[in-house]
Amino acid sequence: MKFDDIVPVRYVDDALLILDQTRLPGEEVYIGMETKEDVWDAIFKLKVRGAPAIGVAAAWGLYISVRNLQAETAADFAVQVKEVADYLNSSRPTAVNLSWALKRMVKTMEDYLEGCDAAPGNDEERKIHWTKEVLKAEARRIHEEDVAACKAMGEHGLSLLKPGMGILTHCNAGTIATAKYGTCLAPLYLGHEKGYGFKVFADETRPLLQGARLTSWELNRAGIDVTLICDNMASIVMKNGWIDAIVVGCDRMAANGDGANKIGTSGVAILAKEYGIPFYMFVPTSTIDLDTPTGDEIVIEQRNGEEIYKMWYEKPMAPEGIKTYNPAFDVTDHKYITAVVTEKGVVYPPYDVNLRKLFE
Amino acid sequence: MKFDDIVPVRYVDDALLILDQTRLPGEEVYIGMETKEDVWDAIFKLKVRGAPAIGVAAAWGLYISVRNLQAETAADFAVQVKEVADYLNSSRPTAVNLSWALKRMVKTMEDYLEGCDAAPGNDEERKIHWTKEVLKAEARRIHEEDVAACKAMGEHGLSLLKPGMGILTHCNAGTIATAKYGTCLAPLYLGHEKGYGFKVFADETRPLLQGARLTSWELNRAGIDVTLICDNMASIVMKNGWIDAIVVGCDRMAANGDGANKIGTSGVAILAKEYGIPFYMFVPTSTIDLDTPTGDEIVIEQRNGEEIYKMWYEKPMAPEGIKTYNPAFDVTDHKYITAVVTEKGVVYPPYDVNLRKLFE
Repeated sequence: MKFDDIVPVRYVDDALLILDQTRLPGEEVYIGMETKEDVWDAIFKLKVRGAPAIGVAAAWGLYISVRNLQAETAADFAVQVKEVADYLNSSRPTAVNLSWALKRMVKTMEDYLEGCDAAPGNDEERKIHWTKEVLKAEARRIHEEDVAACKAMGEHGLSLLKPGMGILTHCNAGTIATAKYGTCLAPLYLGHEKGYGFKVFADETRPLLQGARLTSWELNRAGIDVTLICDNMASIVMKNGWIDAIVVGCDRMAANGDGANKIGTSGVAILAKEYGIPFYMFVPTSTIDLDTPTGDEIVIEQRNGEEIYKMWYEKPMAPEGIKTYNPAFDVTDHKYITAVVTEKGVVYPPYDVNLRKLFE
Repeated sequence: MKFDDIVPVRYVDDALLILDQTRLPGEEVYIGMETKEDVWDAIFKLKVRGAPAIGVAAAWGLYISVRNLQAETAADFAVQVKEVADYLNSSRPTAVNLSWALKRMVKTMEDYLEGCDAAPGNDEERKIHWTKEVLKAEARRIHEEDVAACKAMGEHGLSLLKPGMGILTHCNAGTIATAKYGTCLAPLYLGHEKGYGFKVFADETRPLLQGARLTSWELNRAGIDVTLICDNMASIVMKNGWIDAIVVGCDRMAANGDGANKIGTSGVAILAKEYGIPFYMFVPTSTIDLDTPTGDEIVIEQRNGEEIYKMWYEKPMAPEGIKTYNPAFDVTDHKYITAVVTEKGVVYPPYDVNLRKLFE
């Protein structure tokens, strides 16, 4: 099964391997992480990307960075671990899953050492040894929990789809953005395992081309029928009758169901409504922010306009210094979202009521 | 006035100059046409592009290619002119304006020579001399008629716009695609001359990037406030309240008002409808085809998928050989078109009735 080969982060035979996503789609290269600097660099340079995948890489990365550390006492060792965690956390300061995973690793270590203190008799060397084992086990747990969450999201999502359907997706919320399966691509992989024969259309997703570089690569690699289109072709493929459902990820969902996702998602949602095609947003419950009432309160990151006319190209495609507008995300109004798929199940409108129930 | 400097085809001091659009936006270079091979090459290699601009270039190109020809008799000369016209016509066989302009030039010559035959007394050398003058005058007429048609379209279009408006456009139906002014950009230039202060947003228009390379270049060059965006950002700029009207060109309009234009136009039209923004399509009457009942009968050109993931780039942006779908145009349903702007005036629905009236 080719799909099982594609994971962004592997821990095998005591080695941490990261798929270098910056070299896709041209080269498929796993790089070994030996030091904390390797891990920091991999996260900073987006060799590993996608919030869940970053969390998993950081957890394993913390473990491999400290597994050979020496210390006089377990307390000294713990101080060193926290320093490494702070260092790794500085690689992408705004990535929520990064700090979440590192905090969880440190907390687990602290809980264990607290237990040790309560049960005297262990010598310091032994405590350090077992602290390392605890960190390794916690990294594995974070990894496995993400696989399970994505798989659950995929199963809930698959309940909305039928064999042979045409599916359109935007950006990359795929297996290489998570521990495995992805969020919105998870049902496609699960359906593929069952021989569903989906026909997938991937928006290239300008300006950073995640759809071309990543989504079309990973689906193609897994043997799923995928067709790459420009973002502005979404309308004609829908009009052609080729699309039965839209699946997209989500970066942050407000309490009323408004969802921020990669720039262009809101346009796809409006086209889907016009053509009468269901639009499904895949949202881990960790991404639902009940403290944000509506999408209007979500601040949109603005990026450098050279991404539009200079990046990737052999020569600039617009006059140097041209005025640009380059938001990284847009907010899809909840009225265009047919259903929200989480790892806990499928949520339908009214979202202001039903999203809240997930947390009760 | 900077705008007057930007024309795709100039005839000055007996020299035919063509703006090499393949070198935009990096370089603004006019190349002199000396021979019929120069003209053929300029059209074939898209140095001059846009249906009206090609027609004008071909008319002048025929004249400069034959102005130094020698012949024993006027009849012999006419044969040579027709051979050159056939040769030039082979540069882009499907370009309607190309064959239209060349046929008109040849017909004018034939009519003139017929008149000469009816009024004997001219010697052959004199007839050849005057035939050349007739061809030159006809090229100038074709040129000036296109300027006048674009200007008229611009004036009708401007009647729909107000000072300070935000305008979104897709692809390039601008001054460099015509003799002057453009079709859908004509009202922007005319308004700019009156100090209207439009704020224009130009879709980059994937995959061939005419919006980035050409529209943002020519508007910027003319001193108009233009902001370049990716196609998938049209939704957010409309949602932001920045767009008061959409202006686009048209490659072919059916009798019911369905209009084929650059890929992505139909998506922009649907977004405009959803956000309550008027959508204006600029259509020279020569582009309205009453023999085509609806857009369903318009055949859409399919192009090579490498334009999507390979062209322009330093390295391929999708796996080699990935399946693609790359239509050059899409059809915008007439129900999304607020008004059709022609050189004869503005046409409102019902289009199946009102477009026909233009030809009565």
